[in-house]
Amino acid sequence: MNAQQDKNIMEYETVALDDADSALVVLDQTKLPTTAELIRLHTAQEIRDAIYLLKVRGAPAIGVAAAFGIYLLAKGIDAEDYDTFYRKFRAYKDYLNSARPTAVNLSWALNRMERVCEDNRALPVAEIKQRLKETAVAMKEEDIRVCRAIGEHGLTLVKPGDGILTHCNAGQLAACRYGTATAPIYLGQERGYHFHVFADETRPLLQGARLTAYELLAAGVDVTLICDNMCASVMRNGQINAVFVGCDRVAANGDVANKIGTSVVATVAKRYNVPFYVCAPTSTIDRDTPTGADIEIEQRPAHEVTDMWYEKPMAPAGVKVFNPAFDVTDSDLITGIVTEYGVMRAPYTEAFKELFRSRQSL
Amino acid sequence: MNAQQDKNIMEYETVALDDADSALVVLDQTKLPTTAELIRLHTAQEIRDAIYLLKVRGAPAIGVAAAFGIYLLAKGIDAEDYDTFYRKFRAYKDYLNSARPTAVNLSWALNRMERVCEDNRALPVAEIKQRLKETAVAMKEEDIRVCRAIGEHGLTLVKPGDGILTHCNAGQLAACRYGTATAPIYLGQERGYHFHVFADETRPLLQGARLTAYELLAAGVDVTLICDNMCASVMRNGQINAVFVGCDRVAANGDVANKIGTSVVATVAKRYNVPFYVCAPTSTIDRDTPTGADIEIEQRPAHEVTDMWYEKPMAPAGVKVFNPAFDVTDSDLITGIVTEYGVMRAPYTEAFKELFRSRQSL
Repeated sequence: MNAQQDKNIMEYETVALDDADSALVVLDQTKLPTTAELIRLHTAQEIRDAIYLLKVRGAPAIGVAAAFGIYLLAKGIDAEDYDTFYRKFRAYKDYLNSARPTAVNLSWALNRMERVCEDNRALPVAEIKQRLKETAVAMKEEDIRVCRAIGEHGLTLVKPGDGILTHCNAGQLAACRYGTATAPIYLGQERGYHFHVFADETRPLLQGARLTAYELLAAGVDVTLICDNMCASVMRNGQINAVFVGCDRVAANGDVANKIGTSVVATVAKRYNVPFYVCAPTSTIDRDTPTGADIEIEQRPAHEVTDMWYEKPMAPAGVKVFNPAFDVTDSDLITGIVTEYGVMRAPYTEAFKELFRSRQSL
Repeated sequence: MNAQQDKNIMEYETVALDDADSALVVLDQTKLPTTAELIRLHTAQEIRDAIYLLKVRGAPAIGVAAAFGIYLLAKGIDAEDYDTFYRKFRAYKDYLNSARPTAVNLSWALNRMERVCEDNRALPVAEIKQRLKETAVAMKEEDIRVCRAIGEHGLTLVKPGDGILTHCNAGQLAACRYGTATAPIYLGQERGYHFHVFADETRPLLQGARLTAYELLAAGVDVTLICDNMCASVMRNGQINAVFVGCDRVAANGDVANKIGTSVVATVAKRYNVPFYVCAPTSTIDRDTPTGADIEIEQRPAHEVTDMWYEKPMAPAGVKVFNPAFDVTDSDLITGIVTEYGVMRAPYTEAFKELFRSRQSL
């Protein structure tokens, strides 16, 4: 499929519940950019595998997929009494939660769904199931509102004609609409800002090349693909005015876990005095994680590095591989963290405390 | 071919003149790591294409290939008088020299061969041809001596058991033996140093994955393959004690042009206080280039980024691509430049002046 001819890709829903309320429907992102294919998931294993195998990926999308997924599994639990229902719900929850360790949105969404059970334990199980559905649907709508708000705040940090670098895909494909890192880009596009976007290809799984370049091209944005190791060249050339990235988890001190290579971009941006912004729904701020050193980094299989989509070998057989899926960017490299409530600045520990205090008082 | 079973790969000659004195024989590096194939080159176009298409690559190997190549072409010139011979020689030289702009060794080797003509213009053309051959053969032998000396000096900078990161391939495959960045590794291997080597895969053409991991694995070195964007992770983990890279050109002030991504590694190394060493035969120090800003950076085709070895698309059709083959690493990021005469330290302008002054007086 040619993204230039396929303007409708942006109208696909990344994550949805089907009309019959019987399946989780996701756009299979491992098939992009060649094929846009919706897949229907029913069982716990299908849902967990879709997350583990990155068919659905991106912290916000994983959260919404987990919420819809656990709702569907809960709906299928054959139990009248709460304790039996809850025991089975917990087993499903733990199973889905084991799919990926780094993004906090997975456990955040599942915990929120679990609280729906607990808060409504006095109700009939059928009623609890209905509340679970309402909550999952609300989480998707909230994701769209949050991403749009991040876009508005992010847009205040750049000006028309700017060059923007992004890493991995924190785009519409990683969320339900707008994306996080791409939200300022899409809002700017609507308003004639004419940004020049540079997309890091993002090895090993090429989310930047396959997904970000794809969705931006389809949306008519001026996008240029580069290899990850070219970020210094474009910054040195003066082509980049700001970096926007998404994140999988923000620690209480502002350290950020995001796709492998993010901290490399941040380090290089600092050298070239390019502002480096992390776009983060407050759901990704994990106050239970003190610093980046406390974040578990997912290690993924060697064949992701040695083979191109499991077909063509590009390294000698038998070579050892180190394949962390994420890295930690220290907070001193981060110019600002863009949330739906505004742009947070260092010191982040204090900024986050104030943010959560003021939200509680709302 | 499995590198672990193929211990003899290291006995292949990267660049050679065949016994019948009729062809330039190179190991086709675009076929590695799956096939080790020697190809025989006769015409100017075959020789230039082999350099442009990276069948032979790496600054030292390009220099020796150009020397053998221009000798073979000169040998075939049908002329008795010097002026006719020289005019045709110059046409061949300019043609070969146009293959790649960034590595200085290409023009350095061709200029040295041209001086053989000029210095011997009083001799019969047949005698000039013989001198050209002797010079090319001597250049290859010199390359081996120089790489070994770089290895000895580089080895003083590390200790047994160290973790060493290298980028791209400045290995035996990039030279005639030992390589430059790998020379300390091979000499350490001979002496039981048990280094833990990390090889950046080096997008877009994966010289690190296909070539460096391959040759080190074949030589029994403990090597781990990583994607370029994982360099911060291994340094943050404390796994790297030193970085060794090769170079394509060193400017008079110590700025270094090398494979794209080198300056990213250097910037990250500085943040994590990991010493960053450039291994450079003095033939790569270009006193006619004042700073890195004066080095022409080769731009290569988009399909190198968008397609894996020209077969499998990994980006949307029609996307713009920026594909510089090299970048410039500012001298302030470089801990030392390891030459065959010792380890140069900043300020490099003065160090190089002293080096060339003392060599002239030898």
